[in-house]
Amino acid sequence: MRRYSTPATVSNFVKIVEVGPRDGLQNEKQVIPTPVKIELIERLANAGLPVVEATSFVSPKWVPQMGDNREVFQSIKKKPNVGYPVLTPNIRGVDNAVAAGASEVAMFTAVTESFNRKNTNCSTEEAIDRMVEVTKAALDKGLKVRGYVSCVLGCPYEGVVSPIAVAQMAKQMYDAGCYEISLGDTIGVGTAGSMGHMLEEVLKVVPAEALAVHCHDTYGQALANILKALEYGIRVVDSSVAGLGGCPYAPGAKGNVATEDVVYMLHGMGFETGTNLDALVETGRWISEQLGRETGSRAGAALLSKKVARESKI
Amino acid sequence: MRRYSTPATVSNFVKIVEVGPRDGLQNEKQVIPTPVKIELIERLANAGLPVVEATSFVSPKWVPQMGDNREVFQSIKKKPNVGYPVLTPNIRGVDNAVAAGASEVAMFTAVTESFNRKNTNCSTEEAIDRMVEVTKAALDKGLKVRGYVSCVLGCPYEGVVSPIAVAQMAKQMYDAGCYEISLGDTIGVGTAGSMGHMLEEVLKVVPAEALAVHCHDTYGQALANILKALEYGIRVVDSSVAGLGGCPYAPGAKGNVATEDVVYMLHGMGFETGTNLDALVETGRWISEQLGRETGSRAGAALLSKKVARESKI
Repeated sequence: MRRYSTPATVSNFVKIVEVGPRDGLQNEKQVIPTPVKIELIERLANAGLPVVEATSFVSPKWVPQMGDNREVFQSIKKKPNVGYPVLTPNIRGVDNAVAAGASEVAMFTAVTESFNRKNTNCSTEEAIDRMVEVTKAALDKGLKVRGYVSCVLGCPYEGVVSPIAVAQMAKQMYDAGCYEISLGDTIGVGTAGSMGHMLEEVLKVVPAEALAVHCHDTYGQALANILKALEYGIRVVDSSVAGLGGCPYAPGAKGNVATEDVVYMLHGMGFETGTNLDALVETGRWISEQLGRETGSRAGAALLSKKVARESKI
Repeated sequence: MRRYSTPATVSNFVKIVEVGPRDGLQNEKQVIPTPVKIELIERLANAGLPVVEATSFVSPKWVPQMGDNREVFQSIKKKPNVGYPVLTPNIRGVDNAVAAGASEVAMFTAVTESFNRKNTNCSTEEAIDRMVEVTKAALDKGLKVRGYVSCVLGCPYEGVVSPIAVAQMAKQMYDAGCYEISLGDTIGVGTAGSMGHMLEEVLKVVPAEALAVHCHDTYGQALANILKALEYGIRVVDSSVAGLGGCPYAPGAKGNVATEDVVYMLHGMGFETGTNLDALVETGRWISEQLGRETGSRAGAALLSKKVARESKI
């Protein structure tokens, strides 16, 4: 077995993968008008985000929220040097993504048997076989493929998850040809403790450069978990502007970590992200207003409150 | 100058100093009935917290919320081995605290000139002189004295704060006889970056064993900042159940870091706290209900939501 470790010198640049328009909006209850989705993606790219996951090519029967995937994807004014991956659960999804003009797709599978059975109606082994097959088909079409592993720090059905099982699945995705594997704490139960234990196993078999973390803030732990991942050399972080998205397994609880909170921390630590925090905060304010909800970003709320106080003094 | 560094082996026990009944309730807008305050303090001590800051012996003219300090302090059923410090801004406060039976008091002063002038109407030099004088008087009466330094990672009036200035002030408090100095990010603007820089300076002049961190979650950074402090060997953390308390400098923003979120992280990292998380969550639910507000604890909200889901299945 190859052994990877954290590189001695790691980059000062952290790549933020914005998942609000897909993972975020998919878990919001109300239907979002297509023009709002398009504007959201364009605003996020204009704020300097290097990757904005745009939509999901999944059957509208399962995810009606993403039924306008083709229109959204084709309508966004794409910026050079910005990636717009789309989620594709199967070969049909890949075909539709290619037909819409996508050049990058994302696959997902969960570590635990129960989660795979409940969400994709197949065993983990079948889920992996399917992922390998779809990844191969996508690579054959010249697409870049990103992989998601769900439930890496806990499963809503099985509880504790084995770090070794996570490492095995991440390696299978890496070996299948995914250029990056995003390790998802889907239900946000992880802590800096479990994040560290999990990464120690995964880094034995996949290099840090090919890993991302995808943290949910359900238990308020997301930023601490991301800090721990940075210490292990991880330099790709998934997040969602305004903390868009809920947690279907804990009604009322928070979902994805907010991009504004992550960027605030990273800039405060001296990392570069290429993003403009003010533009992100403004985008978070705008989309929260569109959805008639409060922002899920604490840094966003604090910066907006300061701005309002400043303007009321003028 | 003595030079201190992080000890090679540090304790696996983290002492939580619960500040909800004082720092928390003081910043809540509505008046809290005295029996609710008493029950809150007793519930917190029963949940295993080793220190519960009970009230403030300050003039009711300045802080009407704490006008019932004597009644609260004398009415609580005190547990052995639990500390119940009270805030005392001046000698009169110390005298009143002693008369009420307190055996531990807390002093505070801020790093920045503007903050001291606006909040205590004196210069930083005068604030320090007063703190030294009041500390001496308290020690002479046989009291334990805890010190708070405010604005250690940022000031609402001056912005960036010098870590060297924080270190100097912490050392003055330590030399004056405070057994513990709590470093407060009063407006929650700090990040793991500024927390690290600040602690590097403070640890040169005060040992880790005599330091605590007091983080506000205004920008969502509190847990990450606490994680960074733990890495520097700090083993005392101030927090507030249900995240009680707001931030007077950013209306609508979150205040103190929630005890439940801190304990969730610490237990997940294998630290011992002596507290019962379920009892803390239940106390957070109860006091939030009393105040007619939602809990400010994400872990609390998620654990309650899980409990509700479980009970609705029975």
